[in-house]
Amino acid sequence: MSSVKVGLLGLGTVGAGTVNLLARNRDEIARRAGREIDIVHAATRHPDRPRACSTEHFRLTSDPFAVVDDPAVEIVVELIGGEGLARELVLRAIDNGKHVVTANKALIASHGNEIFEHARRQGVTVAFEAAVAGGIPIIKAIREGLSANRIEWLAGIINGTSNYILSEMFYQQRDFADVLAEAQGLGYAEADPTFDVEGVDAAHKLTILASIAFGIPLQFDKVHVEGITQIGSEDIAYAKELGYRIKLLGIARRVVGKGISLRVHPTLVPQRRLLANVDGVMNAVMVHGDPVGSTVYYGPGAGAGPTASAVVADLIDVTREINTDPKHRVPFLAFQSHALSDEPVLGVEEIETRYYLRMDAQDTPGVLADVTRILGDNGISIEAILQKQPPPGADHVPVIILTHEVSERRMNAAMAQIEALPTIQGRLTRIRVEHLD
Amino acid sequence: MSSVKVGLLGLGTVGAGTVNLLARNRDEIARRAGREIDIVHAATRHPDRPRACSTEHFRLTSDPFAVVDDPAVEIVVELIGGEGLARELVLRAIDNGKHVVTANKALIASHGNEIFEHARRQGVTVAFEAAVAGGIPIIKAIREGLSANRIEWLAGIINGTSNYILSEMFYQQRDFADVLAEAQGLGYAEADPTFDVEGVDAAHKLTILASIAFGIPLQFDKVHVEGITQIGSEDIAYAKELGYRIKLLGIARRVVGKGISLRVHPTLVPQRRLLANVDGVMNAVMVHGDPVGSTVYYGPGAGAGPTASAVVADLIDVTREINTDPKHRVPFLAFQSHALSDEPVLGVEEIETRYYLRMDAQDTPGVLADVTRILGDNGISIEAILQKQPPPGADHVPVIILTHEVSERRMNAAMAQIEALPTIQGRLTRIRVEHLD
Repeated sequence: MSSVKVGLLGLGTVGAGTVNLLARNRDEIARRAGREIDIVHAATRHPDRPRACSTEHFRLTSDPFAVVDDPAVEIVVELIGGEGLARELVLRAIDNGKHVVTANKALIASHGNEIFEHARRQGVTVAFEAAVAGGIPIIKAIREGLSANRIEWLAGIINGTSNYILSEMFYQQRDFADVLAEAQGLGYAEADPTFDVEGVDAAHKLTILASIAFGIPLQFDKVHVEGITQIGSEDIAYAKELGYRIKLLGIARRVVGKGISLRVHPTLVPQRRLLANVDGVMNAVMVHGDPVGSTVYYGPGAGAGPTASAVVADLIDVTREINTDPKHRVPFLAFQSHALSDEPVLGVEEIETRYYLRMDAQDTPGVLADVTRILGDNGISIEAILQKQPPPGADHVPVIILTHEVSERRMNAAMAQIEALPTIQGRLTRIRVEHLD
Repeated sequence: MSSVKVGLLGLGTVGAGTVNLLARNRDEIARRAGREIDIVHAATRHPDRPRACSTEHFRLTSDPFAVVDDPAVEIVVELIGGEGLARELVLRAIDNGKHVVTANKALIASHGNEIFEHARRQGVTVAFEAAVAGGIPIIKAIREGLSANRIEWLAGIINGTSNYILSEMFYQQRDFADVLAEAQGLGYAEADPTFDVEGVDAAHKLTILASIAFGIPLQFDKVHVEGITQIGSEDIAYAKELGYRIKLLGIARRVVGKGISLRVHPTLVPQRRLLANVDGVMNAVMVHGDPVGSTVYYGPGAGAGPTASAVVADLIDVTREINTDPKHRVPFLAFQSHALSDEPVLGVEEIETRYYLRMDAQDTPGVLADVTRILGDNGISIEAILQKQPPPGADHVPVIILTHEVSERRMNAAMAQIEALPTIQGRLTRIRVEHLD
């Protein structure tokens, strides 16, 4: 049987890693795919620059459209990133009848519905294991490994940069700004770290995970997103004292009879949970399904090797799909079918969860009584209170409260009333708490 | 398209769980499989007994051969366990041209080569996700999710009973016999716990994992197996003092240029590793591949729900395979191909690892000098030594030594020399140490 012909868009670190991996494990890969996989055409902005891979076995061009229009190419691998040119190229590849493998989470999260509709019409596959959690085969695990389950919720550490920063803040008792600067020096954070530290990158990935887990359309704009820039080192210390770690989680949860909650925010996680112990740039996703219960998938969320691992696994899967008689093909994605669920995405005010509150209170009798009365009046019960010594020279003391489960709506009301107390200084810090059980 | 017809052998808790799951998530499952999946014929020893599932939609028989010989049945699900009758039924089903899904790890580990040879000849699939680590889709993760990788090693907590016992010994400072009796009362351990606590069950699962990871034949009889019955609560305490947890691990490692090491034994694992924090009856498998690096898969290793989740996922995969044109099918398993690797399995004396040694030494000067001289003479360097106070009234003190990496052969020689010292009482306790990095 002839080899499968692949066109590659982008020859940066992941692109070169993909070329090298296909060469290095060539025989194994052919055995698993049922055919050899050959890159025949690749596009890069600067074809003349030296590369981290050999380029002698394929045509090299600076025109990416030459690759997606090449009649010999059966699968296009998109590794250029971004949403503009990448979208145009991927749609054109699909409309040319080619299958697509992409590592581009922003593209799938923001334009996936359009892309999958084109793919459905053309009868081609769009695979994107590399777009979420790098080397962890989480898309396959949810889509196939847990295919018999009804997924109830999932929660993931799906941004390595913010997890690295939170880990350093925890272990080294350092401040956010300090660690961020170091992470930028180490190459763990971009010069403009907004996408990572403000939760946007995690929201892209959560959008994709939720779509597969619940069979809903991609709805990136409905994800509630909060980053880690407001997390103080004191919050990390108080959380530890209470038995928790603070992690930036992407959470998708089916709220029976109401809809799907989609949110990215810093979260207190009990320190005994596996997710609480995922450190540095690593990623992990916990999935709770019926009847399986909870399973967790952990691994490197970025980097040339892990991403190439996922890209080539997708190439093998797509090759096996190509080997299949077209009239027996099952859509690669649940959401490539027509049967998308129309369950609504809930606003964050609809959720019910536990809360960590931190406030600066006047060091006078009766303040705690006012605060607890307001919480009680709003039907909020308290699990724990920490009242710390005032910092030297200060007349305000930090008060930390952990609550039991309550609706965000009630918590918003209670917080407004507490902030209005003359004995409370400034705004409250509110971090949601998830027990993940 | 007509539904796929399934025959079921065994209607115990997992069998009933499978029936219930296929009914409860029927539409979702059909969407993912491309066809509906119907159980049409089931065998159970006592058809008249009440069941935990409805039996009105299929024929019920006490004769399992009636199921595997039923011309209407396309896939046989084997859930009766054991190696005798199960082997006979599975081989007959295959020879009748039927696909097989099984949760039977002993059957696959001990008779898999014969079974897969029959399956290869008949062009049918034998799927066994449920045989290893229950609800964790670890077979699929290694076989497909990491298909682009060269697997270098894997290490897993793959026996829930022994992990429960070790967890209780750690957290409650209790003795092995005490916890085992309680586990039997709770139903976590069998009346005859040998398979679990002596490592046999873990060895079955390791055999299967290694075969998939390295493409080698199933070689259960070559696994080095040690259980947890010799682990004392003092070892757990000393390990903790040194920063380690003791876990029963199944380990498969490619030793470049030599072969594959396959072993099940208690292992000191650094407490910061995720595997060290897998508690109770849960399972977890760490897989290290090139280029992905390390990934971990965690979840429930047993129980009706998790096992049924894996059985039905296999049914969906096999159904999709049936939908494929036979001449384009890729063998479901790497080791169903002819290209099995003939890499030898290494004896345990061939391995190199770190060691934890515990000995009772006479509380006199010079003993430690003798012991360290013997280790030095054998080229073994020491990472840490703990010398404890003697127990009240005893004239011997516990000495604990952690070594750097050394060959098991050298360690055996050194241990024999140390045990021959007149100042050392009894045998040494030796537990291997794996840093999993």
